[in-house]
Amino acid sequence: MSVTAAKGFTAAGVAAGLKDSGAPDVALVVNTGPRLAAAGVFTGNRVKAAPVLWSQQVLGGGQVSAVVLNSGGANACTGPLGFQDTHATAEKAAEVLGVSAAEVAVASTGLIGLRLPMDRLLPGIATAAEALSPHGGEKAAIAIKTTDTVHKTAVVEGPGWTVGGMAKGAGMLAPGLATMLVVLTTDADVPAADLDTALRAATRTTFDRVDSDGCMSTNDTVLLLASGASGVVPGAPEFAEAVRAVCDDLAQQLVRDAEGASKDIRIEVVNAADEDEAVDVARSIARNNLLKCALHGEDPNWGRVLSAIGTTSATFEPDELNVAINGVWVCKKGSVGEDRERVDMRYREVRITADLAAGPHSAVVWTNDLTADYVHENSAYST
Amino acid sequence: MSVTAAKGFTAAGVAAGLKDSGAPDVALVVNTGPRLAAAGVFTGNRVKAAPVLWSQQVLGGGQVSAVVLNSGGANACTGPLGFQDTHATAEKAAEVLGVSAAEVAVASTGLIGLRLPMDRLLPGIATAAEALSPHGGEKAAIAIKTTDTVHKTAVVEGPGWTVGGMAKGAGMLAPGLATMLVVLTTDADVPAADLDTALRAATRTTFDRVDSDGCMSTNDTVLLLASGASGVVPGAPEFAEAVRAVCDDLAQQLVRDAEGASKDIRIEVVNAADEDEAVDVARSIARNNLLKCALHGEDPNWGRVLSAIGTTSATFEPDELNVAINGVWVCKKGSVGEDRERVDMRYREVRITADLAAGPHSAVVWTNDLTADYVHENSAYST
Repeated sequence: MSVTAAKGFTAAGVAAGLKDSGAPDVALVVNTGPRLAAAGVFTGNRVKAAPVLWSQQVLGGGQVSAVVLNSGGANACTGPLGFQDTHATAEKAAEVLGVSAAEVAVASTGLIGLRLPMDRLLPGIATAAEALSPHGGEKAAIAIKTTDTVHKTAVVEGPGWTVGGMAKGAGMLAPGLATMLVVLTTDADVPAADLDTALRAATRTTFDRVDSDGCMSTNDTVLLLASGASGVVPGAPEFAEAVRAVCDDLAQQLVRDAEGASKDIRIEVVNAADEDEAVDVARSIARNNLLKCALHGEDPNWGRVLSAIGTTSATFEPDELNVAINGVWVCKKGSVGEDRERVDMRYREVRITADLAAGPHSAVVWTNDLTADYVHENSAYST
Repeated sequence: MSVTAAKGFTAAGVAAGLKDSGAPDVALVVNTGPRLAAAGVFTGNRVKAAPVLWSQQVLGGGQVSAVVLNSGGANACTGPLGFQDTHATAEKAAEVLGVSAAEVAVASTGLIGLRLPMDRLLPGIATAAEALSPHGGEKAAIAIKTTDTVHKTAVVEGPGWTVGGMAKGAGMLAPGLATMLVVLTTDADVPAADLDTALRAATRTTFDRVDSDGCMSTNDTVLLLASGASGVVPGAPEFAEAVRAVCDDLAQQLVRDAEGASKDIRIEVVNAADEDEAVDVARSIARNNLLKCALHGEDPNWGRVLSAIGTTSATFEPDELNVAINGVWVCKKGSVGEDRERVDMRYREVRITADLAAGPHSAVVWTNDLTADYVHENSAYST
């Protein structure tokens, strides 16, 4: 499972003492080849953490030998010294693995604005290197958890090749990726440019359409590494679909583990004039705090859905809008529709369908409800 | 005080039975002249309640004889029948007051998607007309409350003339106005076009810069009525300033009464390239749920401020950003600044200053923290 499901990879997860709890906090993923092709997608936030700035440079070369990941500190907003810390992290991994630091990606997660304790992180990298194993994927997935309640892995098998991956993320999930770190690996023989195409297509309709709390992280990183160890060159469509499926699986796991959430909310906008407008409307609904509170209270408050749609510039006529909640069309033609008492809100998944009656396009965005637990978790996080 | 502080106005507030609680729910404000000049500003939401659609038509004529306001139902998303209800409301007021229905504005607030009980509202209008008094302003302000814990009024005196007003609003407060109904009155002799200029300028920097929870209402209405009863024609700048001051006072009262809030958060963006960018950045900070939770927990989490700034397209360099919380510059040059332990977070007001180091412009937006009480209040509102 995880990042070692595909051949040509080893991984490890160890406790280096970055977390006060003593839980694992440093992960290492190593591509043992024969290929070192890689692609990456990073946060759209203009305030980027040091490891994002570093890894963007590394990925520019299209080759990655290893990825060092740490929880227990985001190394964001830490200035030039923070960037030096990331550089030293890559150098240390390069040294113990015998590879070039220019091929070592780094990803960090945790609190913003704190320097990493390098006196613990650097020995932790050496310890992780000693623990590397072709069965280390689960341990790596565990070591990148922050407020995640479970570790997250996924695998899809192709004919003769495999795509596997791990993810962390439980809050600050929003477009342009979430506070999430994701490493995908494959033993398919795919060059970097084709990895990039497949990864961007996959993230666009999976991770980028998870909008748990509207907050965009400084550290989001999704990497795809290909070892070529299977010796198989897959067809582009089937490979792209496998990458998409793994991303989709991991994205769903992120939604289900969102901080404090009691509902997973699937928002589908249909009959939009184009896909971008469908996404805009879905995101506006996903970010409406009043609606998210109502759904937490199992109240099918379609008025708040219409109110959210009305703030967008998408193509629609207010008196042509239709809204279904869990299959009941509670709003028809912008007004009262079927009896809202018929909506069964008892289950964790809530399905909202918003029909713009403006064209043939659609999109799905996932979000969560807004709960007192979310408030508690995020008002006490750094204390 | 309130809408009867200025000469030439009577008002009333009565209980018509729209609210199950039996609390007052119908207000009437009547301009007794000699002038009937008026201006209005309405929600930017494209899904507009029936009374907004009606009152926009009325205000097009620049004359308003009376305003009927009701709590206990928003009459939004109620289709053509809902519009007929608003029309009938105006006709009833016109009948009992002996004025033209085309000069009767209507404003409603409460739940979306429910028809108003006209068999109670219409008799309520007759009762309110009988109760009209030049001292009725307070009662009118009380009758428009929904989840407001207090009624809200303000008065500013000019030389020989007065501007007074009332407001309701305690949630769904966002730009393009809040779920708020505001009626301002003045006995100054000002034509409709000049009222419009003064009102738009005032709301742009007051009500439009309150962003309590990012949710824009379908019903927001701000009206300014001038009776000319003082016989004084004020200078345009002094009149504009009086209108602004009343709006600012009422806007501050809305912030302080926001649903479930424990903190009033003043976000000032300074050194922006232009005012629009300053507002965009301030609003992005105001809408960051993670930050709002942190401030609720009295955690001066400047990393979440930077993360919010980074999602905007405003002009700035990430490593030139500075952030102060309650006067302590906890972030300098995009990195760790003064000791965050020095920030005193015990008081209700929190002041955030974000320095973009990009120009001479600034703007202030007010918001509130995100609390478990907000979640509770809004997950149980309609049940």
